[in-house]
Amino acid sequence: MKGSVVRVGVLGCGNVGAALVTLIGERAEAIEVRTGLSLEVTRVAVRNLTRERAVKLPEGVLTHDAAEVVNDPDVDVIVEVMGGVEPARGLLLDALKAGKPVVTANKELLANFGVELFAAAEDGGVDLLFEAAVAGAIPLIRPLRESLAGERIRRVTGIVNGTTNFILTRMSTMGASYGDALTEAQTLGYAERDPTADVEGYDAGAKAAIIATVAFGAQVVAGDVYHEGISGVSSEDIAFAHRLGYEIKLLAVAEQGDDGRIGVRVHPAMVPVTHPLATVRDSFNAVFVEGDSVGELMLYGRGAGGMPTASAVLGDLIDAAGNLRKKTFASLGHLGRAEICPIDEMRGQYYLNTEVSDRPGVLHEVSGVFARHDVSIQSMEQEGLGDKARLIFITHDASEASMQATLHDLRELDVVRAVTSMMRVIGA
Amino acid sequence: MKGSVVRVGVLGCGNVGAALVTLIGERAEAIEVRTGLSLEVTRVAVRNLTRERAVKLPEGVLTHDAAEVVNDPDVDVIVEVMGGVEPARGLLLDALKAGKPVVTANKELLANFGVELFAAAEDGGVDLLFEAAVAGAIPLIRPLRESLAGERIRRVTGIVNGTTNFILTRMSTMGASYGDALTEAQTLGYAERDPTADVEGYDAGAKAAIIATVAFGAQVVAGDVYHEGISGVSSEDIAFAHRLGYEIKLLAVAEQGDDGRIGVRVHPAMVPVTHPLATVRDSFNAVFVEGDSVGELMLYGRGAGGMPTASAVLGDLIDAAGNLRKKTFASLGHLGRAEICPIDEMRGQYYLNTEVSDRPGVLHEVSGVFARHDVSIQSMEQEGLGDKARLIFITHDASEASMQATLHDLRELDVVRAVTSMMRVIGA
Repeated sequence: MKGSVVRVGVLGCGNVGAALVTLIGERAEAIEVRTGLSLEVTRVAVRNLTRERAVKLPEGVLTHDAAEVVNDPDVDVIVEVMGGVEPARGLLLDALKAGKPVVTANKELLANFGVELFAAAEDGGVDLLFEAAVAGAIPLIRPLRESLAGERIRRVTGIVNGTTNFILTRMSTMGASYGDALTEAQTLGYAERDPTADVEGYDAGAKAAIIATVAFGAQVVAGDVYHEGISGVSSEDIAFAHRLGYEIKLLAVAEQGDDGRIGVRVHPAMVPVTHPLATVRDSFNAVFVEGDSVGELMLYGRGAGGMPTASAVLGDLIDAAGNLRKKTFASLGHLGRAEICPIDEMRGQYYLNTEVSDRPGVLHEVSGVFARHDVSIQSMEQEGLGDKARLIFITHDASEASMQATLHDLRELDVVRAVTSMMRVIGA
Repeated sequence: MKGSVVRVGVLGCGNVGAALVTLIGERAEAIEVRTGLSLEVTRVAVRNLTRERAVKLPEGVLTHDAAEVVNDPDVDVIVEVMGGVEPARGLLLDALKAGKPVVTANKELLANFGVELFAAAEDGGVDLLFEAAVAGAIPLIRPLRESLAGERIRRVTGIVNGTTNFILTRMSTMGASYGDALTEAQTLGYAERDPTADVEGYDAGAKAAIIATVAFGAQVVAGDVYHEGISGVSSEDIAFAHRLGYEIKLLAVAEQGDDGRIGVRVHPAMVPVTHPLATVRDSFNAVFVEGDSVGELMLYGRGAGGMPTASAVLGDLIDAAGNLRKKTFASLGHLGRAEICPIDEMRGQYYLNTEVSDRPGVLHEVSGVFARHDVSIQSMEQEGLGDKARLIFITHDASEASMQATLHDLRELDVVRAVTSMMRVIGA
């Protein structure tokens, strides 16, 4: 190794990889002035050698063999932006075992095998950094790991999927239907042709698992996360939300109770318009953190995109390169498995919209169902008359199981024509 | 030194110091599990030994001699929460020279002598961390130093003074006058009996100097910061701002132009209601960062208060203690003096509210003044008729000097009865 040169091997050269190589080229001088580190991209692994690339690389840098990059003695640090579980997992384990620090943006890998990788990093005595894997350019993992290292974190609530936030923003501000907003998102390239991973909450769920693991220091995997998507959110739900002073957002929530159990879930929720998360628009992301002494924090920014994500990768890369030179590293260590709180036992506030018969005694019957299941009502409003009569409830904190039982029994009542919507509410 | 015990000496035991000692007590076990570090508060320097304290300390821990704490061989790390320039400056220089890492929340000291302290930390080979000095509990300094280490930062715009944000929020949401809102802030303990440091922008100016130093890697001191306070903001200004879709906020702005010069200023400004900074209410703080590749970031949270500030100090303390054990440190190094852009040459958009005669040709005369000084107009509205006629302008980007010249010449015009308000605008 020459002086302060740190040689970087990049696995994957798609959107983020190409942006990173460009950014390192543009910023190399400034980084050297500030940190004394000279970053050099020496090897880049790509799937297809013959494809045209936005970024020009010298002869001998490109290869289609990712293992060659990992094992190259002329590579000091590995950046993984190829995505997917395999072969990324095997490659990164090899790199960490060989004492090469790793920077990765791979949420799928971390949400399923993060703890195995953290352990390999600890054993290899090197960094494994992954700021870009959750909420793109937003500094989140570093604040959770470092700034809040002494904090008792209660809950982290995030808007961590830009596609669904774009769709919900369109529905809220333009009155678009879910279908039209989705089509627009697809046209603009914000949503995939098969939008399932985004709209059904799988993507946000993977990010929630990583957030929970870092915030609470115990292994949470994607399969632990309860999720509901936004495909059931209607224009009518949004109109009712507005009338009551709320926006509807797809939230990823990770929380730890006093019993130490960790609950992680993704679902649409009503957020008061005065809450900082309500003002997060379009494809922006934000993460709201509640801790015992820190109070409330929110971190806001671009959750995706080549350049913003590359900026987060570069921050990690400079950190990892510096630590490598100083022969130190920061590790999450060997994490134990989290004790997961099942969805039935999670508690929260709920909004219920019911169509009812318009005659005396209806509220008495309906409220009896709530009482039987120990759900207390924070506010109730009647809307409309006759055939259009509705009762709209917001409950106090109740368990999911009690709410599901309440919902079931309400549907059995003769006076209830339909429960048109049940949705979680935060900060009511 | 025993095993992984890190012995902490605290200078000052007011609001933040007492909260820190309490927090360390509560969180020591969790911190040890997570980091392997056992934090022990071994010495605490206070001004008055006989005063009753919220926090109980064992015999021999308290002293009124701060130098004794710094020089105590049983103290590994120094936390300074006493405030003020001297004796803090001398004490911290001694600690750093002796190879003891320092964590400080002292904005006044850093805004005036930060660069001297950074150099001493570099020479001593130890950490000097100061997350709590700017925007309290909000992770800002760490993201600027680490997450954005590779980023070309263009501008940092912050609401970094909770007192003035509380006053402006009261004026905006309750229609309170400046005087009434200030009195309320004083009653609630948010504002000092002499509110000058807050309302005239000195406090925000000191923070802006620190932000600029860290964001741009060059020395900016409090005296470099142009500042205007909020005592001139009237209820009428706020009403006009609302009508045009803006909130008025006291902003601290640090920016670096393509010529490398750094401009730092504090002043009230009109912020579009859709801008994330517009929704920062009450005594909350937030910092908005614009960078070439990262795009827009915002970090939001509690800017003051014993516990939130202590949480930020504790995050730094764990970092410094860990680095001490690993015999490493992270430094800003020896920083050169920034080249400061004088206020006259700073550019931005402006709002101007003028009372004019209601007769043909007035706009022609008025717009001639703007043209003469090379100020182009983005939008104009006439309000009222006859005696109440007003012209309200929002300009395109213009230099402060041109705007001041425009203002001067407008006041000379016969058809202009008064320029009732001129205010900067962001994101118009």
